[in-house]
Amino acid sequence: ATVFKILVLPGDHVGPEIMAEALKVLDVVEECRPAVKFERTTDLAGGCSIDQHGVPITDAVLEKASQSDAVLFGSVGGPEWAQSTPGPEHGLLQLRKKLDAFANIRPCEFLAPSLIEASPLKPEVARGTKFIVVRENCGGAYFGDKREEADVGSDLWQYSRPEVERCARVSASIARILGRDGDGKGGGGPAVVWSADKANVLASGRLWRRATEELFRAEFPDVELRHQLADSLAMFLVRNPRAFNGVIHTDNTFGDILSDISGGIVGSLGTLPSASLSGVPGKGRCNGIYEPVHGAAPDISGKGVVNPVAQILSLAMLLRYSCLLSEEAAAIEGAVAHVFKSTDAGGLGIRTRDMGGQAGTREVGDAICRVL
Amino acid sequence: ATVFKILVLPGDHVGPEIMAEALKVLDVVEECRPAVKFERTTDLAGGCSIDQHGVPITDAVLEKASQSDAVLFGSVGGPEWAQSTPGPEHGLLQLRKKLDAFANIRPCEFLAPSLIEASPLKPEVARGTKFIVVRENCGGAYFGDKREEADVGSDLWQYSRPEVERCARVSASIARILGRDGDGKGGGGPAVVWSADKANVLASGRLWRRATEELFRAEFPDVELRHQLADSLAMFLVRNPRAFNGVIHTDNTFGDILSDISGGIVGSLGTLPSASLSGVPGKGRCNGIYEPVHGAAPDISGKGVVNPVAQILSLAMLLRYSCLLSEEAAAIEGAVAHVFKSTDAGGLGIRTRDMGGQAGTREVGDAICRVL
Ligand SMILES: CC(C)[C@H](C(=O)O)[C@@H](O)C(=O)O
Ligand SMILES: CC(C)[C@H](C(=O)O)[C@@H](O)C(=O)O
Repeated sequence: ATVFKILVLPGDHVGPEIMAEALKVLDVVEECRPAVKFERTTDLAGGCSIDQHGVPITDAVLEKASQSDAVLFGSVGGPEWAQSTPGPEHGLLQLRKKLDAFANIRPCEFLAPSLIEASPLKPEVARGTKFIVVRENCGGAYFGDKREEADVGSDLWQYSRPEVERCARVSASIARILGRDGDGKGGGGPAVVWSADKANVLASGRLWRRATEELFRAEFPDVELRHQLADSLAMFLVRNPRAFNGVIHTDNTFGDILSDISGGIVGSLGTLPSASLSGVPGKGRCNGIYEPVHGAAPDISGKGVVNPVAQILSLAMLLRYSCLLSEEAAAIEGAVAHVFKSTDAGGLGIRTRDMGGQAGTREVGDAICRVL
Repeated sequence: ATVFKILVLPGDHVGPEIMAEALKVLDVVEECRPAVKFERTTDLAGGCSIDQHGVPITDAVLEKASQSDAVLFGSVGGPEWAQSTPGPEHGLLQLRKKLDAFANIRPCEFLAPSLIEASPLKPEVARGTKFIVVRENCGGAYFGDKREEADVGSDLWQYSRPEVERCARVSASIARILGRDGDGKGGGGPAVVWSADKANVLASGRLWRRATEELFRAEFPDVELRHQLADSLAMFLVRNPRAFNGVIHTDNTFGDILSDISGGIVGSLGTLPSASLSGVPGKGRCNGIYEPVHGAAPDISGKGVVNPVAQILSLAMLLRYSCLLSEEAAAIEGAVAHVFKSTDAGGLGIRTRDMGGQAGTREVGDAICRVL
């Protein structure tokens, strides 16, 4: 059997609750595919690691992560650690850096038509939205040299050509995959890549644009690349998200905001997964960190009501990118859509409270396992 | 008579078209208030200045601007100047720097209930939204030291305490003014100020938070200050914009994106004004740059269809902040709302195409003048 080593880091508050459901789903996948084994190790990250070890992630855990095939991450943080420096989230940044997980990927789409109701946008505006945000995840201002004094604070927003190029390879590869799966412009061609920058004011933005342009011309001449200023892209994303169907390729800072806007558009945060990859999809296996977009939600933790779907869909991404089990990934995504879909549309209509339903965390997880 | 010196910079494409309507409105104000004179000088900025002088703004014009009481700015840019370095927009950056117009202010609200239709948000989400974005406009990454090489690009994202403090004074003062005008939490207290930063990852963000916090405590203890991470604020702004009614106080980069999201929420870009102030509202007159949020719109220029309202409302802001003529400002805003309002709600129902109407640029301008 092929053995995949998975490091499981449930984190704080709702983290362990949603992780339990994702691991049940993983059990089902394993039962159905006897040729594949998932060797799991569970460890601490975030506030629970601060409590136990004084730091949000230990070197030992970082080392384990880099020796795994993938990291399934829950969610970290909470008011208990508001005064800790470094805080719980810092563990996540260290993990991204350790694995060099340079491409953060967040799909933005409605898994079932009835989920469009959860969007704050008018249905006719929201309908048909399907894009993926690829955010550079290990460079730019968030990781640049810092100066921290009483009266001055600064961060160096810097990019080098190779940093932009490897992220552009991920964006272009995903555009090709999207096109092949029939979600491009039609006709099976690659989807469009929208590169967002502020080349009109930032030197780093001009490098971003130039390096992306040249890399596409050299390696992905079949993929259509369009440049858009990040501010205007943010505006049009809210007004007409469908216009960006395809891939949004952007730097760490703009990607942070744009991917959260995308989450806002979909509405139900509880369903949004993410992947942080250390390699290019379609070029073999790569290590990655897979986690919900949402946080640790201390206000609803321990009540059995949190939506486990963001974690379960993060697991699907793990299977797709780190294990190359794309059929299994698609099966999970299909099962989630079926569980959500209204009964009059032939689905089960099982949803947690954040989606206007009545179901608890385990009920949703169990339903997904049954459908699988 | 009190004389105000206004430098008029119509700019490119639709710029002169909308400026003509704003100047007609200014004529009406002058007729109604014989004690006030507006001495206007018109000059070049943007692409037209590149054509004439080789630069997007000349030193002579910058000098004139700093000797004026206010600058009424149209919009600049267009494909003709795509290859120019510096480009047309650079003139605007130089102007902001020259006047030290450090606080960019953009109101986000629906001027008439029927305008909620133009929002991409569901009416029940959009309704009642009324906040003002205050963006630091002369510092941060857009103005920081740049390094521009073939394979590296960087911008220094830096803030000093005084830069944050003066912007915080503007935000807090506007919160007081909003409260006084009955738009705060009720009871006439100041509106809430939401400060958006990434204090969890940026040293500049931690300075932003600390300096804002301390300034409010020392000088504006009556104004409620809440901190929110910029990414999560962007998400919630789309999901529930009313939650931020009051003031959003933020730095140059995040403000750029957040104010454009706000524009996206309102929907009709053609109605959104902005002010860039060089002083604190409520502390006497200050110079400022007043301009539409939208750009030069080459695709519709010369056709007499562009919406002049963003420019006319920018003039209202000019009267309020640079001339302290707040009654006249409110009269213009009232006239605009009346012209827009549907006929069955007692208004004139006159709107340009971008708002689903039939009216031309001059028709809207004339109607506003008539109502005034
Ligand atoms: C927790 C924080 C450091 C992180 C980031 O800004 O990268 C988070 O907001 C995210 O988007 O994953
Ligand atoms: C034209 C450009 C330099 C400018 C900016 O980013 O400041 C514009 O986008 C704005 O928001 O006023």
